[in-house]
Amino acid sequence: MEKHSINKDKLKFVLKRSEEDIMTVAVKGVTFGDGNIKFIAGPCAVESKESILKIAELVKKDGADVLRGGAFKPRTSPYDFQGIGQKGLDYLAEAGEKFGLPTVSEITDKQMLPYFENIDVLQIGAKNMQNYELLKAVGRTDKPILLKRGFSNSIEELLLSAEYIANEGNCKIILCERGIRTFEKATRNTFDISAIALLKKISRLPVVADPSHATGVSELVAPVALAAAAVKVDGIMTEVHDEPSMALCDGEQALTPAEFKIMAEKAKEISRIVR
Amino acid sequence: MEKHSINKDKLKFVLKRSEEDIMTVAVKGVTFGDGNIKFIAGPCAVESKESILKIAELVKKDGADVLRGGAFKPRTSPYDFQGIGQKGLDYLAEAGEKFGLPTVSEITDKQMLPYFENIDVLQIGAKNMQNYELLKAVGRTDKPILLKRGFSNSIEELLLSAEYIANEGNCKIILCERGIRTFEKATRNTFDISAIALLKKISRLPVVADPSHATGVSELVAPVALAAAAVKVDGIMTEVHDEPSMALCDGEQALTPAEFKIMAEKAKEISRIVR
Amino acid sequence: MEKHSINKDKLKFVLKRSEEDIMTVAVKGVTFGDGNIKFIAGPCAVESKESILKIAELVKKDGADVLRGGAFKPRTSPYDFQGIGQKGLDYLAEAGEKFGLPTVSEITDKQMLPYFENIDVLQIGAKNMQNYELLKAVGRTDKPILLKRGFSNSIEELLLSAEYIANEGNCKIILCERGIRTFEKATRNTFDISAIALLKKISRLPVVADPSHATGVSELVAPVALAAAAVKVDGIMTEVHDEPSMALCDGEQALTPAEFKIMAEKAKEISRIVR
Amino acid sequence: MEKHSINKDKLKFVLKRSEEDIMTVAVKGVTFGDGNIKFIAGPCAVESKESILKIAELVKKDGADVLRGGAFKPRTSPYDFQGIGQKGLDYLAEAGEKFGLPTVSEITDKQMLPYFENIDVLQIGAKNMQNYELLKAVGRTDKPILLKRGFSNSIEELLLSAEYIANEGNCKIILCERGIRTFEKATRNTFDISAIALLKKISRLPVVADPSHATGVSELVAPVALAAAAVKVDGIMTEVHDEPSMALCDGEQALTPAEFKIMAEKAKEISRIVR
Repeated sequence: MEKHSINKDKLKFVLKRSEEDIMTVAVKGVTFGDGNIKFIAGPCAVESKESILKIAELVKKDGADVLRGGAFKPRTSPYDFQGIGQKGLDYLAEAGEKFGLPTVSEITDKQMLPYFENIDVLQIGAKNMQNYELLKAVGRTDKPILLKRGFSNSIEELLLSAEYIANEGNCKIILCERGIRTFEKATRNTFDISAIALLKKISRLPVVADPSHATGVSELVAPVALAAAAVKVDGIMTEVHDEPSMALCDGEQALTPAEFKIMAEKAKEISRIVR
Repeated sequence: MEKHSINKDKLKFVLKRSEEDIMTVAVKGVTFGDGNIKFIAGPCAVESKESILKIAELVKKDGADVLRGGAFKPRTSPYDFQGIGQKGLDYLAEAGEKFGLPTVSEITDKQMLPYFENIDVLQIGAKNMQNYELLKAVGRTDKPILLKRGFSNSIEELLLSAEYIANEGNCKIILCERGIRTFEKATRNTFDISAIALLKKISRLPVVADPSHATGVSELVAPVALAAAAVKVDGIMTEVHDEPSMALCDGEQALTPAEFKIMAEKAKEISRIVR
Repeated sequence: MEKHSINKDKLKFVLKRSEEDIMTVAVKGVTFGDGNIKFIAGPCAVESKESILKIAELVKKDGADVLRGGAFKPRTSPYDFQGIGQKGLDYLAEAGEKFGLPTVSEITDKQMLPYFENIDVLQIGAKNMQNYELLKAVGRTDKPILLKRGFSNSIEELLLSAEYIANEGNCKIILCERGIRTFEKATRNTFDISAIALLKKISRLPVVADPSHATGVSELVAPVALAAAAVKVDGIMTEVHDEPSMALCDGEQALTPAEFKIMAEKAKEISRIVR
Repeated sequence: MEKHSINKDKLKFVLKRSEEDIMTVAVKGVTFGDGNIKFIAGPCAVESKESILKIAELVKKDGADVLRGGAFKPRTSPYDFQGIGQKGLDYLAEAGEKFGLPTVSEITDKQMLPYFENIDVLQIGAKNMQNYELLKAVGRTDKPILLKRGFSNSIEELLLSAEYIANEGNCKIILCERGIRTFEKATRNTFDISAIALLKKISRLPVVADPSHATGVSELVAPVALAAAAVKVDGIMTEVHDEPSMALCDGEQALTPAEFKIMAEKAKEISRIVR
């Protein structure tokens, strides 16, 4: 019997004690896990102050709850665009402040923590899901953590990485499914819809979906986002860019603000049906 | 660039020529691909005449459009229950006839074709998706074919297997996503929701989802079925048993008729939202 | 604990009862499992009578024990070269006869059995490893069976498929590792060297390696063949063609006779060291 | 054509310019890549001063060239033994010094660099292969780096991570294949023997094999090590413990000193045959 083979012995914090045992994670008035689906939107990378201000205004108007944008980009090749660094975080914080959007950005080393003072949510990216020194460091802060599943990590390993954070005293953890690496090459990754359904059954933590990285191609982002809504996901994180073809990274998987708006409205409708 | 890497050179029949190029597959008045989601329900295996008659009546009442039931079960071990064979097909046909439900059952060898005379849809199972002698044989019949994706076959290979059938002259092909084999062991397989979204974009053929085999555990079947509805799937095939714990095979992934009914109603609602 | 997770309950025939419990499979004086490594060589497909006679002569001279050649090729696309069929088997048998080489060729449907009368070993290909009707049919013959592991089948499933054959009364089974499908795309498949090591520990059956399909590129075939020798494989099956660039199928993975000869000699040396 | 699909555009440093373009990495008189296979041996974790001194003496006598031992263990669960930390490095350095063995140990965060002053080779573990802040930090040292392939990283990604190190000015990089995550569960990971064969063809860097983590079970370690020797690997890293059943971590995959000795001798023989 290989079904439901989560080993629960070492999962002290993340599992539900009862059907109703749900933890919410609040960030500046936006509460993940409260039963209403939330939307995290913004560019793959903060490209300039003007750019992030413009996108922030657009996504706010179109229904975003949280603003995302990468400043330190852990790219597979050292010769690719690596983000604009610390000033990207400053621009992101300023844009969030101006339009009333809490902010999230990826941190890739514990020594960067001071740079993130004005960022509301710390994102642990897929490549760092088992970077335990980083997990322990963010576990010692009091900021909410968005923990992405590694592209080849099991659901059990994701939960164990959440335990690393909780074990340091920080329980404000949001899990994120973003697609896993499989033999299939027609899509960038294989979005594991069952993982969300299973996590919602067994874990107390809110779960968000990142269909942009999972599919890698914009025309599949909205359908997969709606699928996530149908399994009661607590939030959807999508890359949105006002001019996807001009984006400095991953433009081919970004939604336009108009596409984002339509997706968000349908996702809310589906979310209401399944709850 | 590895995105959307379907090689279209050898896909002569299955691809859309235009956005509107949709083929429907009709079976006794039930039309897959007409914009309304359909439901295929029934036991993993036909166990007895009484049993299939009872389940047929229940699923008909609860919204099923097509009755499923295995008679020849290609089990991984030769020492497991292999189905009741030819008489299972007779019972299935009788139950379908009585309750006005077209029927579908799996065929595992071309020499079995005569046994399937009274079965409406021939199912090619995951393990036989690349059994080309079988594909060619069913391609020479005029029955609709339900072609399941092999558990480790790419989307491109699924489409190429459909080409084998079409190349013999039979265009009544329904594709079926049923989960793929990955490193993740918390679920039986990984349901590839993006595959459905992609197939609906590029292929003319109707697509159904089989969440029972994909997840292997009943409490995940309904959520994943709803996710499939959210990506515009044309039908959902689920195992339904009046007493899952007594089922001779795969009982742990069967829905009860009551669970099936609720799922089907929500799936229809979601289907309407996304179309 | 996920180690060595073979479920032995349903493996009645294939497992060793003791360290020394080794079954050999003899075919016209060539005995697989006798402690001396054997070589199966020949073209991917029998292309013509002249071609197979020429290759047979070359590989015999260079150390082959068994002649291989496909007549019915289960190609992924219906529009690719499918082999020359029944007459390919006749040419293969004639070439084997002439140069004193037993022959092996792939069978893809049980109704083809009469065509294989003069072929010594029946090969079940990777795509048909779970085609149980075919397994049962060859299990009712008295010919040795070369059973290839499916590209996404587990070691346990390979052994269960061998049980299907043995359960019909035919114990002359040779297992074949030919690479599995993984996320890695730099090679055609990932050759599972540990599978051979494990099979040699737990199973009574002889095991051969097919490095041609595993790697898909000729310059890796010889190294991987030698690796298989180092884990005590009982035989190596390679595609050999006198003019690889002119081969009608899979030429890029074929060795020249000269390359084959060097590989075979080194493999024998390694085989002696490890025994 | 999916064969050999390494994208070479962003591989500026690691690829061979010609067949003879081989870089060696020397550490205290032990030269990886000089044509003679080397052996890195020692416990999974340094457990105590006495223990590492004892094991160092044994493996030195039995043919080891380099002493390994973990002090900071990046365990999947926060509740598992995490290594004895900084003093483990001190004990390891002392044992290496005493028995004339250069040392290697895993570093998991750049702030740990000062602790590694007396350690000769810095190991980047599989979980940190894409921890780019760490790669850049070790790239700014002048110590040799043992870079392990992530368990789900492609060969191309491994080479790109080596580029991160080289791009900072440190060219003393040894690559390490340690098994990849696949669907197969009979072994802990699937050792990718073709990856070594391919790396030896295309890369200038020395390559070592870690069969202990790949197989996860001691009786498969030696066969897989010999297979690596057959594809011209430059070194073999194995876990060796004088009392495997008492080891504080991963004892089930450790060789005894006696098993290590036999393996090393056979590996040298095979290595000579293939060169």
